[in-house]
Amino acid sequence: MTNRQWHLAQRPEGRPDSDTFDFVETERPDPEPGEALVRTLYLSVDPYMRGRMSAGESYAEAWAVGDPLQGGVVGEVVESNGAGFEPGDVVTGNLRWADYATAPGTALQPVNPDLAPISTALGVLGMPGRTAYFGTRDVADVSAGDTFVVTGAAGAVGSVAGQIGSLSGARVVGFAGSEDKVEFLEDDLGFDAGINYKETDDYRAALDEAAPSGVDAYFDNVGGEITDAVFTRLNVDARVAVCGQISLYNAQSVPTGPRKLPALIESRATVQGFLAGDFTPRFEAATEQLAEWVDSGAISYRETVTEGLENAPDAFLGLFDGENIGKQLVKVAEP
Amino acid sequence: MTNRQWHLAQRPEGRPDSDTFDFVETERPDPEPGEALVRTLYLSVDPYMRGRMSAGESYAEAWAVGDPLQGGVVGEVVESNGAGFEPGDVVTGNLRWADYATAPGTALQPVNPDLAPISTALGVLGMPGRTAYFGTRDVADVSAGDTFVVTGAAGAVGSVAGQIGSLSGARVVGFAGSEDKVEFLEDDLGFDAGINYKETDDYRAALDEAAPSGVDAYFDNVGGEITDAVFTRLNVDARVAVCGQISLYNAQSVPTGPRKLPALIESRATVQGFLAGDFTPRFEAATEQLAEWVDSGAISYRETVTEGLENAPDAFLGLFDGENIGKQLVKVAEP
Repeated sequence: MTNRQWHLAQRPEGRPDSDTFDFVETERPDPEPGEALVRTLYLSVDPYMRGRMSAGESYAEAWAVGDPLQGGVVGEVVESNGAGFEPGDVVTGNLRWADYATAPGTALQPVNPDLAPISTALGVLGMPGRTAYFGTRDVADVSAGDTFVVTGAAGAVGSVAGQIGSLSGARVVGFAGSEDKVEFLEDDLGFDAGINYKETDDYRAALDEAAPSGVDAYFDNVGGEITDAVFTRLNVDARVAVCGQISLYNAQSVPTGPRKLPALIESRATVQGFLAGDFTPRFEAATEQLAEWVDSGAISYRETVTEGLENAPDAFLGLFDGENIGKQLVKVAEP
Repeated sequence: MTNRQWHLAQRPEGRPDSDTFDFVETERPDPEPGEALVRTLYLSVDPYMRGRMSAGESYAEAWAVGDPLQGGVVGEVVESNGAGFEPGDVVTGNLRWADYATAPGTALQPVNPDLAPISTALGVLGMPGRTAYFGTRDVADVSAGDTFVVTGAAGAVGSVAGQIGSLSGARVVGFAGSEDKVEFLEDDLGFDAGINYKETDDYRAALDEAAPSGVDAYFDNVGGEITDAVFTRLNVDARVAVCGQISLYNAQSVPTGPRKLPALIESRATVQGFLAGDFTPRFEAATEQLAEWVDSGAISYRETVTEGLENAPDAFLGLFDGENIGKQLVKVAEP
C-alpha cells in the first residue's frame, strides 16, 4: 500500500516556496510493537514550523534536509500493535505530513468526538488554544480593567487569546490584516476594537484611538513595526507575552529595529517569551476550561480548511500572507 | 550671603557639554516654616540626570531650561525652621546643586556618621546601593549556581550588584571600560571574571570564555552592543533587569539594533525595566542589609571624588566616558 508524504527538499533562504517541499510516495509503514498506525484526517500547519526548516537556532529542533515534515495531526487508529488504542479510535499527536504514519502509543492522546468536532484538537482545544490560555493568563496576566492588545488577532492563537482577555474583563484590541478579519474580531469574537494594519499608516495613532488608556498587556504573535508601536504605548507595569514573531521568520538577515530597553525603564514593563510546552503539567486543566468555554459559547472559533494532503505546503505558505481566518487546517481524509 | 548654584542653561542635543550648564550666584535662601537650610557637603551625579535634561519622555521629570539642577546631596543642617532637625545634623535628600539649599524636613533623611562615612549615603548605602539590591534580588532574581552578568560593573550600581550576586552564590561576570576597572572587579570585589569591553572586539566570544554555561541573570546599566551580545547567550528562563542604558542616553535619534524578541521565545527569558523607587516600602530593610554587608566587609565600595561645586558638570560629563570607578561624587565642602 502506498503512502504519500511531504519531505523537506531544501532549506529555504527567506520565504519558503514550492522548492522547499518534496512530495514522496513511500510504502505504508507497519507499526512496531507498542506503536499504532494512524490514518491522517486533519493536519495542522503552524508558523513555528518555519523555524524547523532552518539550520539556525530555534526552540524547535531543526529538520534535516530530506526529513519527512511533521506536525500536529488528528487521525484514526487503523492498526494497534499493543499501543493501547483500538482501531477506529480518534487520536492526536505530532506525526508526519502523510496519509498514514506510525507512532508509539505513548505519543498519542485520545480525542473525544463527542466533546467537539475532532479538528478542534488542533486548534481551540489543542496547542494553539493552550498557547493562548497560558500566554494570556500566566504570562500577560490579563485582568479586569486592563487594556489588552493582541497581534495576529484573527489567527488560531490570537483569536482565543483575545476572547480569554474579554472573559477576564479586559478591553481587548486586535491587530489583523483585512476588513473581513476586523469584522470577525468585532462582530463574532466580541473584541472591543480591531485594527486593520494593512490599511493603517500610523499604528501609534490607531492605538491612541483604540486603546486611549494605553496598553497594560500585550500578546504578540507578529513582531516588527506593529510591536514597535505597541511598545511606545505600554503603561507602567505592563506585561508583554512574546508568543510568535511571524513578520520576522522569513528575514534573510538579523532584523533590526528601534531599541526597546530604554523605554522599559520608564514603563517598568515585563517582556517574557514563552512556549505552551513549558506548562505541560497544566495541559489537561487548560483543555478542560477551554472545552467548557467553547461548549457554553463563551469562546467562538473558526477554521480555514484546505482540502488534500497535496495542498499542505500551500496552506503553510498562506500563513505568511495571513490567508487564514482562525485555525488553518489541511483536511487529508474523511473520518 | 551669596550662594552658588548650577542651572540648566539649555537642553543638550546629544552629548551635554559646558554650554548645558550655567553657574549662578544667588542669595542664600532662608528656610520657610517646616524647612531646614542645608549646607552641601557631597553632591551625587548620576546617569539618570541626562534624562531630566531633555524635554522628551523620561521616568524622571524634565527640568525646565533655567531651572536649578537637583540631585542627591549629603549635607549639614545649618538652620532648622521647625523641620525636625538640629543644626549640625547630617542629612540626605534631593537638593539643588548649590552651596546651600532649603528643603522641607519631610524631604530629608538623617545620616548616621557613626555607621559609615557620610558620603556612602549617596552610594552603597543610598540610591545606587538600593538599586543594585532590588535589581539583583527581586528583578534579576539571582541565586546560587547562576551565571550573572553585569554591565557598568565598576560603577556605583554595578559594583554593588555584582557583589550581591556573589553573596547569592552566583558566578559573576562584569563588563567595564578599562584594565584598572577589570582589576578592581576581580581583585577588590571578587568578581569571577571581568571583561574590558574597550579592548574586546568580539563580546560573544568573550562571554563564551567568561560565562561558558551561558547567562542566567543579567543586570544591564549600559545597553547597546554589549547587551546585544549578552542576549544571544541567555539561558532558558533567564532574567534581565534593565536598570540603565547609558550608552544610548546621548543618542540624537532613536537608536536601532538587532531585534531581540524572537530569541526571547527560544530562551523564555524575562526582561524587566525597574526603578529603585518602586521598592520604597522596603528601603529601610535594604539599607540595613547593605550596611551590615559593608560593615562585615562582605561588600566593598570605592568612590571617585571630584573637588568643588564648580566642577560638578565635569564630574557628571565624566560618567559618559566612564571616568569614575565606583560612585562618582562631588565634594562641595568639608563637614
